[in-house]
Amino acid sequence: MVPHLVTALTGPINELEQRILESMPAIERWFRLEWMEHTPPFYSSVDIRNAGFKLAPVDTDLFPGGFNNLTPDMLPLAVQAAMAAIEKICPEAKNLLLVPEPHLLSKKFYLMNLQRLVQIFSLAGLNVRLGMLDDRQTDASTLDLPDGSHLEVEPLLRTKRRLGLKNFDPCTILLNTDLSAGVPKVLEDLHEQYLLPPLHAGWSQRRKSRHFQAYEEVAKKFAKLLGMDPWLINPMHTQCGEVDWQQPQGLDCVRSNVDALLTKIRRKHKEYGINEKPFVVVKADDGPSGLGLMTVRDAKELDEPGFRERHMAITGGQPTGEVIIQEGVPTYERMNEAVAEPVVCMIDRYVVGGFYRIHADRGIDQSLNAPGASFVPLAFAESHHLPRPGEKPGVSAPNRFYMYGVIGRLAMLAAAYELEATDPNAEVYE
Amino acid sequence: MVPHLVTALTGPINELEQRILESMPAIERWFRLEWMEHTPPFYSSVDIRNAGFKLAPVDTDLFPGGFNNLTPDMLPLAVQAAMAAIEKICPEAKNLLLVPEPHLLSKKFYLMNLQRLVQIFSLAGLNVRLGMLDDRQTDASTLDLPDGSHLEVEPLLRTKRRLGLKNFDPCTILLNTDLSAGVPKVLEDLHEQYLLPPLHAGWSQRRKSRHFQAYEEVAKKFAKLLGMDPWLINPMHTQCGEVDWQQPQGLDCVRSNVDALLTKIRRKHKEYGINEKPFVVVKADDGPSGLGLMTVRDAKELDEPGFRERHMAITGGQPTGEVIIQEGVPTYERMNEAVAEPVVCMIDRYVVGGFYRIHADRGIDQSLNAPGASFVPLAFAESHHLPRPGEKPGVSAPNRFYMYGVIGRLAMLAAAYELEATDPNAEVYE
Repeated sequence: MVPHLVTALTGPINELEQRILESMPAIERWFRLEWMEHTPPFYSSVDIRNAGFKLAPVDTDLFPGGFNNLTPDMLPLAVQAAMAAIEKICPEAKNLLLVPEPHLLSKKFYLMNLQRLVQIFSLAGLNVRLGMLDDRQTDASTLDLPDGSHLEVEPLLRTKRRLGLKNFDPCTILLNTDLSAGVPKVLEDLHEQYLLPPLHAGWSQRRKSRHFQAYEEVAKKFAKLLGMDPWLINPMHTQCGEVDWQQPQGLDCVRSNVDALLTKIRRKHKEYGINEKPFVVVKADDGPSGLGLMTVRDAKELDEPGFRERHMAITGGQPTGEVIIQEGVPTYERMNEAVAEPVVCMIDRYVVGGFYRIHADRGIDQSLNAPGASFVPLAFAESHHLPRPGEKPGVSAPNRFYMYGVIGRLAMLAAAYELEATDPNAEVYE
Repeated sequence: MVPHLVTALTGPINELEQRILESMPAIERWFRLEWMEHTPPFYSSVDIRNAGFKLAPVDTDLFPGGFNNLTPDMLPLAVQAAMAAIEKICPEAKNLLLVPEPHLLSKKFYLMNLQRLVQIFSLAGLNVRLGMLDDRQTDASTLDLPDGSHLEVEPLLRTKRRLGLKNFDPCTILLNTDLSAGVPKVLEDLHEQYLLPPLHAGWSQRRKSRHFQAYEEVAKKFAKLLGMDPWLINPMHTQCGEVDWQQPQGLDCVRSNVDALLTKIRRKHKEYGINEKPFVVVKADDGPSGLGLMTVRDAKELDEPGFRERHMAITGGQPTGEVIIQEGVPTYERMNEAVAEPVVCMIDRYVVGGFYRIHADRGIDQSLNAPGASFVPLAFAESHHLPRPGEKPGVSAPNRFYMYGVIGRLAMLAAAYELEATDPNAEVYE
């Protein structure tokens, strides 16, 4: 059932696993206290990379699209978490309006994700219907799924104060679209209903750098609790704000930041005796994961002829754009011959499951979130995110997955910090 | 995986299953609203009987002892529910003191139950230790489990205001002893810690008649929601208060109540065209389930020679005692040749699993909670308490188990009503 893990388990990660397992009651208590102060995102998924010497989140998705990769065994857990989430937000709810990502409705995998979400929230006791975020849709349409089932998507119906469908007035509107193209007017000024996640969680307003800044804060607190170096769970980062991709000097900031970050990583590697060539990842600060991501091992690569043209995808093909430079965390997990990275899925504060994203054509230092990726849900099946105290670190899949669940929750907590800091409606006490 | 069900599925139960499935969103919402007003017991298990024509709880245990019968698959669900429960009661908790039933510590099955409880609450992130409710225990002792593992039980340490163990000060004290012998002094006047369930949930103060009175209220509300006859889920009952078992006229009240109840059942059977001989069950009103339970089909049986002597066990061998007379609900579920009844396990408001109690030597009209009973945990394995909408009633195990989960939760809600009504510290507004 459990995929073979060939993680290079040398030194630090075993210590980390050991420390995390020993500290389980302290860790769970710490999370409970954090959740008293901070509101977890309604749902989320976190991509994690296990480098053997460090373990870090590389992407936190607040509009997760991989619930179809969970095994049916994980369904009861997801349903129970959904019940707990709904109960806190809108206990009197009858109806949930789910708003999918319009441009993904042609993708089979995405339809399976939608179906799974509909299933989870229906089994949690809600009437769930899908609303199309596209003015051009004026009638209900039926989408065919690979398993022979169907989903109906209906046109949204906006009144002055509420959003719904024909004969369907929801208490909660659950967005599964990342709003990277901006916030549609139809979603604005909804003050009577719960819109989840909030609009400022969309990629038109979110910044990766802000998330990782919050994560750094969380990682420091957590590392203090466990008496360890936060670097073991934190990917260092730096950012450049707006970069002009058309001019050679436009990349000056990127170049100097790449150089500085590589130096910092080299120092850390030396401290831990890690025999790896450091690399950094340059990516758009304001876009969903994977898009036009670039691996750099030396700042000089940025001056190579044609470099800027080849990598304009980072800014989405635009002449300018904000970029983040992040410490590259190689992934040493493999399934057979393919490079693998774990993805942890959460609803409310609970880890409800996870899966491996694998990609046979990608290297250990590249993004696996790219066409050609496949998914293996077996890894996190059943009770594997529950640790087995007493087993040696590094040898027990359940213990490994507990550790992934902790890192996933740290990233989720960082997203909670981030959303508080960026909330346009937050009350400020000074 | 799923045991063969040979329930006599004629008429009403299929309609009930259908009605319950169709009404799932309304039912879940109704429970959510009830839990806003009422506090669920910390944990509970409910014995259910499926007569084909009606489905009813027959016993609600607030100190459940069957967690060892859950499959490992159900563990994540139990852990998540335990996390939710602890979070509400004592989020800053580090330590949980579990107080087992002293006279069951020689039973292997009970030790396995304790081990499972320790596992659940440890995995929820608490330091769990066991405290012995017996003054004679002055040192820690080690108990050997059938699987080769061990549990340590320590003497309780009481200070003026708190209860704990040596070097162990818990936030919450979880009782797994039903206190049928009365409330020990060591548990009295603990106002700084959470004592769960509260003392008045113990059998020295609890009355079955009070529970079923609360259940009747719950069943009526629920039946109104679904537009159905509450009798389909409610076992009728009546009670006699103190009965003098030594005198023939001591049973006068029992005799007339048995007669009246049998008449009421006969009327209901006629209404639904049920071709069954009615029976009632006479049992102690203030004791744990099963003990000295007696099946009666005719009030005349009470006058048979030697009857009172044979059934003095009802009052625990005492000359007098309180009794409850309850409509007998036959169980038509079978595993192979043995009579079976489902048991639903809950933590906080969540169904975390269930199992079948089976007994090869007992009839469909007898208590299965007796020596010789065995347990089949397979039935409720995995996601089987999640319904599959669209499947025909009566043919789908998951749908059947969803229905059991609903009835289990109704009985748990009744226990919440009951504990509120009997709370000696309740504030009364008049």
